Amino acid sequence: MEYFSAQSIKDLDKFFRLNLINACTGYKSANLIATKSKQGISNVAVFSSVTHLGSNPPLVGFILRPLVVERQTWKNIEETGIFSINQIHSSIIEAAHLSSAKYPDEISEFSITDLEEEYLENFHAPFVKSSKIKIGLSLKEVCQIKANNTQLVVGAVEHLFIENNLVKKDGWINHEKAKTVAITALDTYSEGKQLDRFEYAKPHEKIKSIQ
Amino acid sequence: MEYFSAQSIKDLDKFFRLNLINACTGYKSANLIATKSKQGISNVAVFSSVTHLGSNPPLVGFILRPLVVERQTWKNIEETGIFSINQIHSSIIEAAHLSSAKYPDEISEFSITDLEEEYLENFHAPFVKSSKIKIGLSLKEVCQIKANNTQLVVGAVEHLFIENNLVKKDGWINHEKAKTVAITALDTYSEGKQLDRFEYAKPHEKIKSIQ
Repeated sequence: MEYFSAQSIKDLDKFFRLNLINACTGYKSANLIATKSKQGISNVAVFSSVTHLGSNPPLVGFILRPLVVERQTWKNIEETGIFSINQIHSSIIEAAHLSSAKYPDEISEFSITDLEEEYLENFHAPFVKSSKIKIGLSLKEVCQIKANNTQLVVGAVEHLFIENNLVKKDGWINHEKAKTVAITALDTYSEGKQLDRFEYAKPHEKIKSIQ
Repeated sequence: MEYFSAQSIKDLDKFFRLNLINACTGYKSANLIATKSKQGISNVAVFSSVTHLGSNPPLVGFILRPLVVERQTWKNIEETGIFSINQIHSSIIEAAHLSSAKYPDEISEFSITDLEEEYLENFHAPFVKSSKIKIGLSLKEVCQIKANNTQLVVGAVEHLFIENNLVKKDGWINHEKAKTVAITALDTYSEGKQLDRFEYAKPHEKIKSIQ
């Protein structure tokens, strides 16, 4: 085992620490958050911190750090109260990654990547056309994380679009078929290969697979 | 495209909605959170909401919902200020899933699953012996999410243990080699297959892979 104490992590080279701590929690969700300013300039950027918060009401959150690439996203959400979360799949990982490059605020990342914006159900924020799962959200709440001045942005699901033939009859989504990717560390994209789906676990009973 | 509005999600069958909303954000981290009460009873349970919050200081969070299986975890964290996050890999998915069955509080899930507890660096909380990545954390902060009475529990990394030959010289962790799994929905475990690792994106430059 390699061992890192709190002190040795503090003393690490900055980029080593960034890679190590970003990677130690495992696979992260890979999504594009898209917004549009009141002036009509759209924005899209990769986020790996999108997290399910609850199903009833349906709430989703993401962590907003004081990073350059995220400022425009937050400015637009604050201004309009609206954003979209769009699945990244294996065919768009280069385009998605390119959206995190630092462009001037007046340039939409949709104009300089292969990602196309699309507007659905009169929602102000754009969706990413090629994504197979698209969520339209309204800003519900912002929780301050005092320990490092980050924020948990909480959105309520207003619209959910999923490509045909991905949702099973019990509501489960086939991410392997959707070629959904996951992110590890800051920069690594992986596809999933399903090992098993299990029934709800009960004491003293063997775990059973769901077919 | 299948379309679900906020109203149609509200009207869905409860289990359909649980599966759908839990699945729509993509792959989630798969970790075991382990704790020990002051009385010395250990506890371990699966969490799919562990999220990187920052690297300097190194902070990790998870969402605590008012679910039966999580109560003991929170009780122990509140009592001791200490918990551990342990990677789930492909060989322990059945054991990990079984830990979420409802056992009486006085029974340690370590005693009824194949998961073994281990104690390192005089840390009060147990670690999961077979996990290849183990994080020891102290409770730093709890953020209330008013919208649905959940909490974001924030922990500071005190100890980090990683199996030999998984950390590259730039701090990046090889999760494919570690056979780390990801969770989708409530019950599905997948392995990752790495597609690519990219250099930091720069405007007007083609995305380059890191070898």
